[in-house]
Amino acid sequence: MIKVKGYAAQTPTTDLAPWDFQRRDVGPHDVQFDIQFCGVCHSDLHQIKNDWFEGIFPMVPGHEIVGRVIKVGDKVTKFKVGDLAGTGCMVDSCRECENCKRDLEQYCLKGNSQTYNGLEQDHKTPTYGGYSNTIVVNEDFVLHIPENLDLAASAPLLCAGITTYSPLRHWKVGKGHKLAVIGLGGLGHMGVKFGVAFGAEVTVLSTSPKKEQDAKKLGAHHFLVTSDPEQVKAAQHTFDFILDTVSAEHDINMYMSMLRTDGTHICVGVPPKPSMIKAFSLLGGRKSLSGSGIGGILETQEMLDFCGEHNIVSDIEMIDIKDITTAYERMLKGDVRYRFVIDIATL
Amino acid sequence: MIKVKGYAAQTPTTDLAPWDFQRRDVGPHDVQFDIQFCGVCHSDLHQIKNDWFEGIFPMVPGHEIVGRVIKVGDKVTKFKVGDLAGTGCMVDSCRECENCKRDLEQYCLKGNSQTYNGLEQDHKTPTYGGYSNTIVVNEDFVLHIPENLDLAASAPLLCAGITTYSPLRHWKVGKGHKLAVIGLGGLGHMGVKFGVAFGAEVTVLSTSPKKEQDAKKLGAHHFLVTSDPEQVKAAQHTFDFILDTVSAEHDINMYMSMLRTDGTHICVGVPPKPSMIKAFSLLGGRKSLSGSGIGGILETQEMLDFCGEHNIVSDIEMIDIKDITTAYERMLKGDVRYRFVIDIATL
Repeated sequence: MIKVKGYAAQTPTTDLAPWDFQRRDVGPHDVQFDIQFCGVCHSDLHQIKNDWFEGIFPMVPGHEIVGRVIKVGDKVTKFKVGDLAGTGCMVDSCRECENCKRDLEQYCLKGNSQTYNGLEQDHKTPTYGGYSNTIVVNEDFVLHIPENLDLAASAPLLCAGITTYSPLRHWKVGKGHKLAVIGLGGLGHMGVKFGVAFGAEVTVLSTSPKKEQDAKKLGAHHFLVTSDPEQVKAAQHTFDFILDTVSAEHDINMYMSMLRTDGTHICVGVPPKPSMIKAFSLLGGRKSLSGSGIGGILETQEMLDFCGEHNIVSDIEMIDIKDITTAYERMLKGDVRYRFVIDIATL
Repeated sequence: MIKVKGYAAQTPTTDLAPWDFQRRDVGPHDVQFDIQFCGVCHSDLHQIKNDWFEGIFPMVPGHEIVGRVIKVGDKVTKFKVGDLAGTGCMVDSCRECENCKRDLEQYCLKGNSQTYNGLEQDHKTPTYGGYSNTIVVNEDFVLHIPENLDLAASAPLLCAGITTYSPLRHWKVGKGHKLAVIGLGGLGHMGVKFGVAFGAEVTVLSTSPKKEQDAKKLGAHHFLVTSDPEQVKAAQHTFDFILDTVSAEHDINMYMSMLRTDGTHICVGVPPKPSMIKAFSLLGGRKSLSGSGIGGILETQEMLDFCGEHNIVSDIEMIDIKDITTAYERMLKGDVRYRFVIDIATL
């Protein structure tokens, strides 16, 4: 077994603190890489607080993980020592169901292995995430990170990046489309970057007029203040797609009224309570309310390659791991542009 | 003006009763047809009771209207005296907006003229529906009814028919697809007939095991009792599409769990309250919750022609107009197989 240094929540009510644990030895198909940076996702906080479901404790969060390979198993073909490597939200899946066979491991029908707060495919060994100094992952769930990208700023691509890239690709959002993005956070700011890169006309929807300059800096073409009824009225029936990255309660009906006929409202955030949807929000224009979760491994690599070619990374603020609790507090207030990334050297 | 005999609700709290009113004289582009049969839609009751919005009273309901042409304007080219004719939920629209130009008058952005409880395009003349002996409609909103069909049984095609035909066509439901239909009423029984005609493998979902024989008689291949958790569990991730015709409150999340990845739950009913939708119902398999309202005029004619070719009509129970209140009561209890049609000769 490999000794690992990490930060863990021992219970849902305790702050994260240093915790030593073990990972499996490098098997024939495994890659071990030393973690240099790990992004801080809103879902890290949801999970250590048991917001969605009963978690597995101690919990080492983190699923936006990048570093360099230090060891590979003797059957490994995709990686060699010294390569940049990344791991996102999954470390394994059943590989046999119809979704795994379609490269949609994120929807594995038997349940994939989440990078932390999950179980390996033996259905008993807990997984521990990237708030730690090293990780061992089956090579099929390790991604190549383009060498030309800023490594720390590429970490959030593994979750915030793929979560917004995948639906925009699936629904073929691009030239000739009007795309609205709700929520200018970790996911939203990546949604704006990808939407612009794909050729869509991008509008950021925000409750706060203060974010206009930020939105424009990210490349958004327009900005709409949703707390102003006049602006909402003027935008009725105008968007082809809405990318909704909000994980707090919000009135989806109001947003859907701004969709054109046959428009699609795509949810990638997970609000704590169910959303109230009026029948006329759907029927009044053959509209769809859809959801999308991260992306498959093949598509995640495609996204990383696209980012390498177009020099797209996340806008980040680097933190020491000892400041993680403060970072969570600031994240809850939306006080981060746009993703905290932990410098694992500070562990 | 033309004198008309009808049945109207004078207020939201009074029963329907005989009422004489007037329609406009036949203009150059108008068709007048004497009404022989009019279907009874659940929305007739919703509207006379002000369930959805404040109605226009007196209200003459009815938007599944068929009969024979008795007069045409001198510019009319599509109809001649003696032709069978029908009118559905709309009698006019703006004809200029992007949706009208795409033959989607049902989504007219300026507001179409509903057949009753609406206003003509002058935005002041109230419209009166098919619980009456004659009607005058612009020829562009009059449909040809195939002569080979039972006329009374073809009346419900104008609403229940097109409302289920249109989404199944839009989402290209057919061979190789597993389609579930919820709600074996006026809409649902037509959904089963069209689903089967389009080549889909059709399952009727019902809370009551009693409806199995009826479902099979209509052509459904399978029947699933949703009040049995074992049957619901066995059907997880199995349907490509769900056609949801229910206008009462129901838990859409339970149904969506039976959709495959990338599956679509299509709502054509209008429950009185918003539905609670969990984020994971959408994200857990890139699923869509969509809605569809009736269909455009071009598609309604296509549907009628399809029905003529395939000899598809509604299963109906004919009633005298004096029994309309009893029929509403029975409809509320689901005690009709599957659509009441008023014999207008009894007026």
